[in-house]
Amino acid sequence: MKIAWAQLNFHIGNFNANAAKIIEQINIAKVDSVDLIVFPELSLCGYPPLDFLESNHFIEECSKTIALIAMHCDGIAAIIGAPAINNNETGKRLFNAAYFLNNKCIEKIIKKTLLPNYDVFDEYRYFEPNINFEIIAFNNHKIALTICEDLWDQQDETFTPLNHAKMYTISPMQELMKLNPDCIINIAASPFSYVQHKTRLKVLQRNAIKYQLPLIYVNHCGAQTELVFDGGSCAFNKEGKLIATAPFFKENYQHFNLFQSDEKLIVEYAFPSKNELIYKALICGISDYFSKQNFKQAILGLSGGIDSALTLVLAVAALGKENVMAVLLPSAFSSAHSIDDALALVNNLACKHQVVPIEDSFQSVLKTLAPSFADTAFSVAEENIQARLRGVILMGLSNKFGYILLNTSNKSEMAVGYGTLYGDMCGGLAVIGDVYKTEVYALCEYINKEKEIIPINTLTKPPSAELRPNQKDSDSLPEYDMLDAILFQYIENKMSAEEICELGYDEKLVKRVLNMVNKNEYKRKQAAPVIRISPKAFGMGRRMPIVANYTI
Amino acid sequence: MKIAWAQLNFHIGNFNANAAKIIEQINIAKVDSVDLIVFPELSLCGYPPLDFLESNHFIEECSKTIALIAMHCDGIAAIIGAPAINNNETGKRLFNAAYFLNNKCIEKIIKKTLLPNYDVFDEYRYFEPNINFEIIAFNNHKIALTICEDLWDQQDETFTPLNHAKMYTISPMQELMKLNPDCIINIAASPFSYVQHKTRLKVLQRNAIKYQLPLIYVNHCGAQTELVFDGGSCAFNKEGKLIATAPFFKENYQHFNLFQSDEKLIVEYAFPSKNELIYKALICGISDYFSKQNFKQAILGLSGGIDSALTLVLAVAALGKENVMAVLLPSAFSSAHSIDDALALVNNLACKHQVVPIEDSFQSVLKTLAPSFADTAFSVAEENIQARLRGVILMGLSNKFGYILLNTSNKSEMAVGYGTLYGDMCGGLAVIGDVYKTEVYALCEYINKEKEIIPINTLTKPPSAELRPNQKDSDSLPEYDMLDAILFQYIENKMSAEEICELGYDEKLVKRVLNMVNKNEYKRKQAAPVIRISPKAFGMGRRMPIVANYTI
Repeated sequence: MKIAWAQLNFHIGNFNANAAKIIEQINIAKVDSVDLIVFPELSLCGYPPLDFLESNHFIEECSKTIALIAMHCDGIAAIIGAPAINNNETGKRLFNAAYFLNNKCIEKIIKKTLLPNYDVFDEYRYFEPNINFEIIAFNNHKIALTICEDLWDQQDETFTPLNHAKMYTISPMQELMKLNPDCIINIAASPFSYVQHKTRLKVLQRNAIKYQLPLIYVNHCGAQTELVFDGGSCAFNKEGKLIATAPFFKENYQHFNLFQSDEKLIVEYAFPSKNELIYKALICGISDYFSKQNFKQAILGLSGGIDSALTLVLAVAALGKENVMAVLLPSAFSSAHSIDDALALVNNLACKHQVVPIEDSFQSVLKTLAPSFADTAFSVAEENIQARLRGVILMGLSNKFGYILLNTSNKSEMAVGYGTLYGDMCGGLAVIGDVYKTEVYALCEYINKEKEIIPINTLTKPPSAELRPNQKDSDSLPEYDMLDAILFQYIENKMSAEEICELGYDEKLVKRVLNMVNKNEYKRKQAAPVIRISPKAFGMGRRMPIVANYTI
Repeated sequence: MKIAWAQLNFHIGNFNANAAKIIEQINIAKVDSVDLIVFPELSLCGYPPLDFLESNHFIEECSKTIALIAMHCDGIAAIIGAPAINNNETGKRLFNAAYFLNNKCIEKIIKKTLLPNYDVFDEYRYFEPNINFEIIAFNNHKIALTICEDLWDQQDETFTPLNHAKMYTISPMQELMKLNPDCIINIAASPFSYVQHKTRLKVLQRNAIKYQLPLIYVNHCGAQTELVFDGGSCAFNKEGKLIATAPFFKENYQHFNLFQSDEKLIVEYAFPSKNELIYKALICGISDYFSKQNFKQAILGLSGGIDSALTLVLAVAALGKENVMAVLLPSAFSSAHSIDDALALVNNLACKHQVVPIEDSFQSVLKTLAPSFADTAFSVAEENIQARLRGVILMGLSNKFGYILLNTSNKSEMAVGYGTLYGDMCGGLAVIGDVYKTEVYALCEYINKEKEIIPINTLTKPPSAELRPNQKDSDSLPEYDMLDAILFQYIENKMSAEEICELGYDEKLVKRVLNMVNKNEYKRKQAAPVIRISPKAFGMGRRMPIVANYTI
């Protein structure tokens, strides 16, 4: 049996475009005499559709579109993820389903059993879990068709979101094995993090080996606001050896015989480095944010520091140098090297730039506020006014010329609230908001590995917000090595203050950092969407109360 | 059997304060010779604790605190909502539980069966649903103890969130009836909306009548950022007649005999008007946002328009006139009546105010941007610069003096994106962000019913943002009567464009409005938290993709 996968980049709610893409691949596969072509989970509507699933109109569009696609399935079968209406009298009104299309019909609808409802996932908000197990008989084969999480029941500690040995009380594959399948198909919408591809491979391989069945896995690629889907579709033989892999972050169509057992066909996954993966994920995140909204041009404030430098490099890589405007916004507190470093980077990238000094506006606002501020010392209020005036100017240029403002905050800053709300926190998309400062350095070194793109001085000088004379980040924050290590244990590993101290960190420091994280939830509530690259990003995957007392 | 309820206002994560409150009520009840005192769902940690539930430390604190409270339960029993650890090998690691404390012990832990996971609820993110049903035997009575949603299985169309006849496949009360209980206790965390109290009463009453059992219902009061809990605890006899009610939005302790059948004890619920409820809910929302974070003073921009006028009245009612600073920020486009109306209101309320004209700063920013803006016409860019400079000034005063900025955007504006991101969208709390413009008028009339607090001119003049000469809202938007009616059908009633048109609205207008709603998701993503007063507020209860194509 000749099987193909179509690892595609879908547009949420764009039924026409998504259907056209699917039909195009079906037609290609027909020419290749493919028997069965497989598309990812919820391909038809894009993932995650969120509360669009509560719209009856949206569901009707799904039904119409799947019927249309079915008409193209003659001489070829297709598996396509899409919502299905629950016709039972009880339960949520939808299933997360896989449609088996054949002979111009919907021949079977297979429903997802395990509905992830943690981190960025909210599937139980919309879908009823499946409880009836069925096999697809096709071409003398019996297919165990599963949807993403359905293969993730055998969790062990290394990848259990809640540290509970087994989050699910049911094993879809164990149920399906009673029906004697001869292969496993898994359609997925599995978002990227820099550890996910390895975990995923391990889980899939374990399923192939455990059930001694060949397995094909088909994932989305492309970005949906915060979430980046890395693709990485793959197929295993029944010994759990890889026989086909798709590239990361790219659309891919491939066909092969899932039941061949030629040892020569076994392939190796060449895992890209963490930096390469993050670099590509962020470019994908920017690129799709723009293309899917028909935006062309980006703007950002370039300070001469490392965060805006990295963001600019990524924006230019994603959108082209002709589509990125870097704005230098010097104040009286900007050092000469800041301007020089920023200009050197602009020069290296050959992108557009302009210089808009904020000093006059700053003085004017101070003068206006002088009666109110009388007899007070220069404080964080004056610091923030500068950051906010930069926001005013960047958004002014954005509104005037249609640029989309990219936010340049890193994850360490967002964690401890070291940023000005409505100032440097402005922007439509927080490009590096899930990248810790130490990871920002590592990414810059990765970018500079062949030639110096980001000026070396940007990488070596001490980080500073330059909002008061001779300010350094280290005046207000621990050194970033230390800060990031503590943040990682708290945010990614969900350790308590006590547990982090047991790792050898100073108790006072740990409590100070954790309290900063907690009390700045209000700022993150109003932050731009963050491109997720870690297993625990700020945004939809981390939901904390704003009003709460949880002093560590 | 003498039963008491304690309708209390808890502080999320503040175990010491919550425990102290609970113990205080237990001690009062002991003096009253109460047999059993009942506290709301998840009292111990506050509701909703969100991802704090993923912290092991947080769960350990819950366990320690419940053990401490149990020590006070001698000569009295108590029912207290708190998370319980799932000791089974499979399933999510927690239950949403009700602890039955007696004889200084945890005598029983009852677990929640129906976990709401729609709108503002995410309970399936944290909790495993109960599947084993038990009765509490106490004082020769057999109590069917249920937790909030557990009584909401018999939904009919009028209050089903997803329009599906029955969302749940199991009925906890039907299971419990097999064990012959003689009363029902329901502990809840049921947030306010202006329809919720009536729906709730109907559901509770239906349970009492259906099972012919007396029923006591105990709810939270107080606000948790977006969510306001209105209390409204109540008790029914087995005929479904009310025998006790608690006030709305206030802490309340009351004891009574659930099994008395004296007809004279039957009470009537005097439902407050919609305006009164919303007025009180918003005051509660402001008040608790401040008190639970140890904030004292609020600031807001007062334009002379109706939205900021209403917000100021609410802030003064919540925080006291001495704690509210109104700032007039006139520009060259501000009309004389705007300043007069604003000053008249300040005068009526006797609150603090200052006038900070933005014209000089506006001109300064324009001059700075002149080289970039050369040869362009005055546009939305210049309009927004004014709104953003107001944000800079208000946040400057906030940072300098510790005021919390209140946002004054209404729901109609937030819906269609008629507001400036980082400008008039600034603020820590969006006080009237769930109140449509037409409801804003109704609330102002309610406030003015005895004497003119909000100047009549503010209520009668055409709404204007005053960001360009002679601007009126109606230049950009449909009349608010029409706009709000369409928005309500789309947002609250989830109707499609087609369905709304069938109600008689113009198709072009409907599509224009719905497209405005969809394409402004990015603004709402960065909005301040909105106090929820409707069944469908922007924020945690409405989750839409930002990047999506869903042109109506």
